[in-house]
Amino acid sequence: MLKTPYLLFLGDAPDALTAKVAQGIKDWRPEFCVGQLRLDGCKADLGLKDMTIAEAKEAGAQTLVVGAANRGGVIAQSWVATLVEAAEAGMDIASGLHNRLTAQPALVAAAEKAGTQLFDVRVPQEDYPIADGKRRTGKRCLAVGTDCSVGKMYTALAMEREMRERGMKATFRATGQTGILITGSGVPLDAVVADFMAGSIEHITPDNDADHWDLIEGQGSLFHPSFSGVTMALIHGGQADALVLCHEPTRTHMRGLPHYQLPTLEALRDLALETARVVNPDVKVVGVSVNTAALNDAEAKACLEEIEARMGLPTADPFRQGAGRLVDALG
Amino acid sequence: MLKTPYLLFLGDAPDALTAKVAQGIKDWRPEFCVGQLRLDGCKADLGLKDMTIAEAKEAGAQTLVVGAANRGGVIAQSWVATLVEAAEAGMDIASGLHNRLTAQPALVAAAEKAGTQLFDVRVPQEDYPIADGKRRTGKRCLAVGTDCSVGKMYTALAMEREMRERGMKATFRATGQTGILITGSGVPLDAVVADFMAGSIEHITPDNDADHWDLIEGQGSLFHPSFSGVTMALIHGGQADALVLCHEPTRTHMRGLPHYQLPTLEALRDLALETARVVNPDVKVVGVSVNTAALNDAEAKACLEEIEARMGLPTADPFRQGAGRLVDALG
Repeated sequence: MLKTPYLLFLGDAPDALTAKVAQGIKDWRPEFCVGQLRLDGCKADLGLKDMTIAEAKEAGAQTLVVGAANRGGVIAQSWVATLVEAAEAGMDIASGLHNRLTAQPALVAAAEKAGTQLFDVRVPQEDYPIADGKRRTGKRCLAVGTDCSVGKMYTALAMEREMRERGMKATFRATGQTGILITGSGVPLDAVVADFMAGSIEHITPDNDADHWDLIEGQGSLFHPSFSGVTMALIHGGQADALVLCHEPTRTHMRGLPHYQLPTLEALRDLALETARVVNPDVKVVGVSVNTAALNDAEAKACLEEIEARMGLPTADPFRQGAGRLVDALG
Repeated sequence: MLKTPYLLFLGDAPDALTAKVAQGIKDWRPEFCVGQLRLDGCKADLGLKDMTIAEAKEAGAQTLVVGAANRGGVIAQSWVATLVEAAEAGMDIASGLHNRLTAQPALVAAAEKAGTQLFDVRVPQEDYPIADGKRRTGKRCLAVGTDCSVGKMYTALAMEREMRERGMKATFRATGQTGILITGSGVPLDAVVADFMAGSIEHITPDNDADHWDLIEGQGSLFHPSFSGVTMALIHGGQADALVLCHEPTRTHMRGLPHYQLPTLEALRDLALETARVVNPDVKVVGVSVNTAALNDAEAKACLEEIEARMGLPTADPFRQGAGRLVDALG
């Protein structure tokens, strides 16, 4: 969907965290990145070559990706002149922010004149079919979580990288805006109309080689009352052969819902398996991915060992340890 | 949302089945119906007084409801002149068909000039919040099904009628276009954007009197791979105190999916309970509603007795027997 390579636009990001989308692209798809463009006052730095629009175009950049957010997660008016310049230079523009590129009249006019495209990746770009639940060839692995934001995207990306390094056929399938910007395609599932959710997931995980794995980015949680329907559509549309349970051990309540406890990993295992079996009776839970960022080394080791012993499943933090054991578990 | 009373427009419906939406309104909300309007060739007849637009207006009709579909489920061009006449006479127009009233330029112009409204009830009419899962006052009953189209709407409407006849506080909550046209409000859940599905259901089942029951129309099935995400959002947004299992005993496969078997009622009971407990630990399965339309009297009786004995739950066909036993089961 998005044309590569990218020029990563960091705007006037006041800190590194504000540019986390750009950082994700640079971490997971360095081969897509020809350089970075920073405005005055930008405090983020990816360590890429700083480029003007003209230099990036000369270096082959096809798409400027808005890789930072300002306060409120929106496109800043102070950015528009640079985005217009990129469009005029013949580059597509992509953004995952809340306010839309297509709501900036100057940018729309410039893109129309230059024949370039504006991609708001929060907006579904296709009409998706209704799911038909038919068995597809190839293998699929889905990350499911005890909660939102527990490391499902990271886990799937880390597994894809490990598999590619081993020479395996593996494709990360993005289901959220950050994943779409990182890999250049996918479905913004939370913005899809209800009837077409599962169909959109079938659409991005089609028939494939028997030894090819899709690593599907999870969303939400079966136990999160706000978003469980999205997760269910992923489970039935994704038709997983393998499920990886994702967990953040220091979370004290469901994200955004102080009145909801997290489920146990056992409860997640049982409910995810039961629902996934509807579309694939052979599905297995193969491992546990734990985000131990909030723990020190000793705490993390103890936490991982406790979960591994309790669940009887390979358990790893792919950030601390790599995704090798999770990939081994795919069999 | 819709202003009552209604003039039911049957168009040139070639048979009674084509006018089933109008029949549903007349069956469940006879007090909303001032009359029917039939064009030449119409073979459907609700037994209401035939009226011209002028006569209906005189009789107090506020909204013309398109209660029939032509081939393809769309608004026929031969209907537009009558709809324009209704708008010019000051009536709102409501339709649940696939092509939109708002896509008929002559109708849009007439409605604008007359200051009347066009309601395409397949299109969400509000911005819904993201669900927060907070406990609400009042009671809620949700119909869940082994499959799509097994009688969930009928069951909820029949229970509402029985409860009102007993003087109980009860409100049917529509989640699909037919239910919305029948009762005049609700959420077209299958057309809501994923992130807001559960929130839309919370929105239509708000805090209420402690002895008030919402009877929530179910959609899809947790076991239907195309629509299970919609069902899950209903279960978590609906926060049911009572679940009624709905089943059609002659169905040989999931609707539209010849390669999928129906789940057992036991499997539905267990999965619906487990998922519903996330938002309401006290939820109970109170009964089974069986659509025995395809069985003769002896077969229906045997079927209901077998299910009641096996499940240990009050089991009834609300069409054949009324919803009394299901209402009794609410306790």
